[in-house]
Amino acid sequence: MKEKIDFMEIAISEAQKGLKIDEVPIGACIVKNGKVIAKGYNKREKSKNAIKHAEIIAIEKACKRLHDWRLNDCEMYVTLKPCPMCAGAIVNARIKVCHYGADETNAQDNLCEKIFSSTRLNHKTELIKEEKYSQECADMLTTFFKQKRF
Amino acid sequence: MKEKIDFMEIAISEAQKGLKIDEVPIGACIVKNGKVIAKGYNKREKSKNAIKHAEIIAIEKACKRLHDWRLNDCEMYVTLKPCPMCAGAIVNARIKVCHYGADETNAQDNLCEKIFSSTRLNHKTELIKEEKYSQECADMLTTFFKQKRF
Repeated sequence: MKEKIDFMEIAISEAQKGLKIDEVPIGACIVKNGKVIAKGYNKREKSKNAIKHAEIIAIEKACKRLHDWRLNDCEMYVTLKPCPMCAGAIVNARIKVCHYGADETNAQDNLCEKIFSSTRLNHKTELIKEEKYSQECADMLTTFFKQKRF
Repeated sequence: MKEKIDFMEIAISEAQKGLKIDEVPIGACIVKNGKVIAKGYNKREKSKNAIKHAEIIAIEKACKRLHDWRLNDCEMYVTLKPCPMCAGAIVNARIKVCHYGADETNAQDNLCEKIFSSTRLNHKTELIKEEKYSQECADMLTTFFKQKRF
């Protein structure tokens, strides 16, 4: 079984694919039984679709692969702490653990934590920050936005 | 310009389409300049896809129709108060107002309100409960779950 550090590297290489097509570089992968079953990177601009974040694309692929909307015993690896939409999708899909790299700089309200531990579903998702990859994931985003001069 | 009550009726008729294919009956529509530009109903089971809630389907259709991920000046009408995933998607798509029918009985933590008023985006979505349709929307769900003996 691969080390989880490899899975964060896979998420980072997905983010880099986004960078190549001028998307905000965020990447994700989903792992079951030590194997990557789905990958995705942010395609909001290219797809002109508000839903197409990296995590959503990966979840849809994983559902298709498992022929099930329940992604039981699956873990998500993502370069940026999920936004509320993606955190909600991760819980809805019953993903067990979400590992992330960079923190969202604008999020001061801990919505991701609140969504993952909400009482509305029986399911709760564990959130783990992968400190080792945090700076690399954050730097990709900072560099991207600097080049855009946002 | 149609009255907003008509738009809630359109959302309800979408929910009824879900009922016919044995899905949890939740329906939605998106309105711009007084015209319905997209509709959707929950298809989680049939599509075997955790993402395919009514609101997400409607948002994806609206983005496709407007060729833009930004649904500026659009309003959502939905039979059930949005879950965190859908609330996050509504804010991400910059929808201006979300009108809903039934309250989520399991949600005690006001996550929808928190997501709509989060500081992480400049955009905030207004949430309006359409009291007149609340019971009808709730009854559809109660009847469905009773038949399922959940």
